[in-house]
Amino acid sequence: MTDVLAVLRVLGMLLMLFALAMGVPLAVSWWMQDGIWPVYPVSMAFTLLVGGTLVVALRRYQRELQPRHGVMLVTMVWVLLPLFATLPLLLAYDQIGRSLSFTHAYFETVSGLTTSGSTVLPSLDTLPVSVNVWRTFLQWLGGMGILILAVAVLPMLGVGGAQLFKAEAAGPIKDTKLTPRMTETAKGLWGVYALFSLACVVAYWLVGMSPVDALMHMFATVSLGGMSSHDASLGYFQSMWLELVALVFMLLASCNFALYFVALRKGHWRGFWRDPEMQATLVALLGGGVLVALLLWAKNVYGPLDALRHGVFHVVSVATTTGFATVDYLHWPVLAPVFMLMLSGVATSAGSTGGGIKMVRMLILVKQARREMTRLVHPHAVQPVRLGGAVVESGAIFSIMAFMLVYGGTVIVLSMVLLLTDLDPITAISAAIASVNCVGPGMGGVGPSGNYTTLTDFQLWVCTLGMLLGRLEILSFMALLTPAFWRR
Amino acid sequence: MTDVLAVLRVLGMLLMLFALAMGVPLAVSWWMQDGIWPVYPVSMAFTLLVGGTLVVALRRYQRELQPRHGVMLVTMVWVLLPLFATLPLLLAYDQIGRSLSFTHAYFETVSGLTTSGSTVLPSLDTLPVSVNVWRTFLQWLGGMGILILAVAVLPMLGVGGAQLFKAEAAGPIKDTKLTPRMTETAKGLWGVYALFSLACVVAYWLVGMSPVDALMHMFATVSLGGMSSHDASLGYFQSMWLELVALVFMLLASCNFALYFVALRKGHWRGFWRDPEMQATLVALLGGGVLVALLLWAKNVYGPLDALRHGVFHVVSVATTTGFATVDYLHWPVLAPVFMLMLSGVATSAGSTGGGIKMVRMLILVKQARREMTRLVHPHAVQPVRLGGAVVESGAIFSIMAFMLVYGGTVIVLSMVLLLTDLDPITAISAAIASVNCVGPGMGGVGPSGNYTTLTDFQLWVCTLGMLLGRLEILSFMALLTPAFWRR
Ligand SMILES: [K+]
Ligand SMILES: [K+]
Repeated sequence: MTDVLAVLRVLGMLLMLFALAMGVPLAVSWWMQDGIWPVYPVSMAFTLLVGGTLVVALRRYQRELQPRHGVMLVTMVWVLLPLFATLPLLLAYDQIGRSLSFTHAYFETVSGLTTSGSTVLPSLDTLPVSVNVWRTFLQWLGGMGILILAVAVLPMLGVGGAQLFKAEAAGPIKDTKLTPRMTETAKGLWGVYALFSLACVVAYWLVGMSPVDALMHMFATVSLGGMSSHDASLGYFQSMWLELVALVFMLLASCNFALYFVALRKGHWRGFWRDPEMQATLVALLGGGVLVALLLWAKNVYGPLDALRHGVFHVVSVATTTGFATVDYLHWPVLAPVFMLMLSGVATSAGSTGGGIKMVRMLILVKQARREMTRLVHPHAVQPVRLGGAVVESGAIFSIMAFMLVYGGTVIVLSMVLLLTDLDPITAISAAIASVNCVGPGMGGVGPSGNYTTLTDFQLWVCTLGMLLGRLEILSFMALLTPAFWRR
Repeated sequence: MTDVLAVLRVLGMLLMLFALAMGVPLAVSWWMQDGIWPVYPVSMAFTLLVGGTLVVALRRYQRELQPRHGVMLVTMVWVLLPLFATLPLLLAYDQIGRSLSFTHAYFETVSGLTTSGSTVLPSLDTLPVSVNVWRTFLQWLGGMGILILAVAVLPMLGVGGAQLFKAEAAGPIKDTKLTPRMTETAKGLWGVYALFSLACVVAYWLVGMSPVDALMHMFATVSLGGMSSHDASLGYFQSMWLELVALVFMLLASCNFALYFVALRKGHWRGFWRDPEMQATLVALLGGGVLVALLLWAKNVYGPLDALRHGVFHVVSVATTTGFATVDYLHWPVLAPVFMLMLSGVATSAGSTGGGIKMVRMLILVKQARREMTRLVHPHAVQPVRLGGAVVESGAIFSIMAFMLVYGGTVIVLSMVLLLTDLDPITAISAAIASVNCVGPGMGGVGPSGNYTTLTDFQLWVCTLGMLLGRLEILSFMALLTPAFWRR
């Protein structure tokens, strides 16, 4: 019990930081005079109050956090922050005289913070600008949270990413003695993230977006969130240059941020270009894009140039788990959206802001499977699995395997539950996959031109759970459910 | 090269045996006077000629077969026997003045020998009886082949089943010093199979089938093939008693045949009832059946008794990879058929006549995943994975993992190829799953009331490949594609 209290104290501190983040939409509201500024101080005050109370009341429970506390804290943060994030939304909707249920608001904030980017809000273009800033800013916060979670916090806590991280010995971490201390790693990743964010917002502005649109779409891009301030998503702009900017930054954000950090600090990029996961991610994204472009051309959906433009953009968008759309790709041959959604499960790198299983896990499993095939013929051949020159330990492979099984099981169970509510199979299964991978748009009723509004409250809760599980990399969450966790 | 010749010699011997099997429909054709008996001696003669030529021409290449030869032989057998099996079909269709393409004939014989049981032949009820006997008899031969392949041949050759087999140390094999020599094991399994076959044919006859119908449906039941001599499948009979007989024998055939062999020889069944895989198979099949029955009742599809009857029967039928149907379950809430098809991937035991991943692999992976979850919390806890008291070696887990990955990859690639032909997603994906698991009926256009006739030739070839890959347990086939295989 005292464990839980110690964790709650840290949560209180995070809540206070989160309250400060509400200053961003407040500033925009003042600047753009959208008429709902009082919403933000109220939300801030309430969040600060709750956080402060926790910190003060539990000040005696300050202690070193252990792995099991890490699992608890991370879960609490991803479940509870969206709760406080709904305050500005609910208050703003009240202010402008529209109705918004708690279920819808919580879905929206979870979708933002997990960088899923699905929306249940109709008529986005008519909302006060600061509301859209808040929605999209949640993605940026979530994206940063994921980076720190995946690269700095989780390995330190021995949770989820840890074994994977060891497996990545060939990556930059071991090579360059990247300090394992959380604060410094975190700072380095923030730095890269801030750099990308700045470059992205300037680039969007240069190709013609208004400053505030550039800001909001930068939030959606570098976090791979894909939540837009327009109902028509990026299709609102109808600009090829803008799509190109989005494309470049989605590609950048789908690689391991630690690679950039190390390359920048060392001043040379050899390690970066040699990273097997980075290579595989880019090959999967661009190769997949070209394949879909060829399909679109072969099936006469577009001429060759439009096929290339739309094919590559949407494959990269969906497979990086961003989910921007400029056309309704559900009108394409059905192989295309299915393929894109499949890719979203594996294409992004670990340590990126993307969702899914992550490419490094897939690479290791494929190499392992190849080794087994050799063993079928030469039963006594002993070769270790190698990635980028380094040996992957058995423990890492076991851990990845367990992750894959739990991941697959989660998608199947959530699909089944959605099917139980009589949703059609395409919508149900694609919604489950799109939620767990934090993509956003799926197929059928939840495709790129629709949104999640058509789902019932219960179905929305299932998707909300899916996004949270996906973001928590499932396994760490599952640990909470084991009896061993609660035993001392 | 001389390796291939040695394997071809053995193939020649098997072809000669296969020619003899054509005596069964020949006998039925004489007895029932269906007017097409000359078809069979011609087919037999041709098959004998080819087989005999191989044996005589390659008599100098007699040698001990090694693992790599096993992989080659097994692949050749499952690809080439269906080729010769098309002879009676093609000749019979010519005789009765109907048309049948080679693609359709080969699909049908592969479907039979792999015990998938899908059909592309319309108007089954109007075919000469011996043709239906030949179709359904192929399943019985295939079922026996699978048993011997899975339990006797593959482990000996160190292929596919081997590591799994070691993992099953708790099972009957190690316990009772079941002799590892192929011939004796094979005899024991044949004995059990023959016993079940005899009991099944008598039971079908007692509940009202004509002797020849009893024979054909016995072929379809104990092999878990599910191919009927009636367009309406088992629904033709509209008899609850008959469904009950089918249910019992499907359940019997979905457990490990070695368990029966050992129990019968020892005279007591303790080991049988304690086998963890057997328990899991029965719980999955009957538990799944009851769940679907509850769903059907809750959604007012049937009253409670009909829900139980149809729910349990069809879950067992699909999940054991049999594929009999008495109603069109695609009219049920869509969760039911999806759930049944999912179960078909995992429910049957290794060493049964069923398809899919097999329950023992699933059990081991789940136990492994549970161990990893404990390790998240207690990183230094070292506990081996256990199944039925025995420790599962790491090598076995790695092998299962590779199998699962290749299995999943196969289903995905085949689905994608079918989608590329503009088949709708439900039909495409379910056809891929139903083919690789050797179930037969899928969903959409290939559901229980439809058949595979609506597919194009190309789509049929994709499904044919799926059935072959599924039956060969994929991995052993994949070994053929590795360079290591062809290196000395
Ligand atoms: K997203
Ligand atoms: K079958």
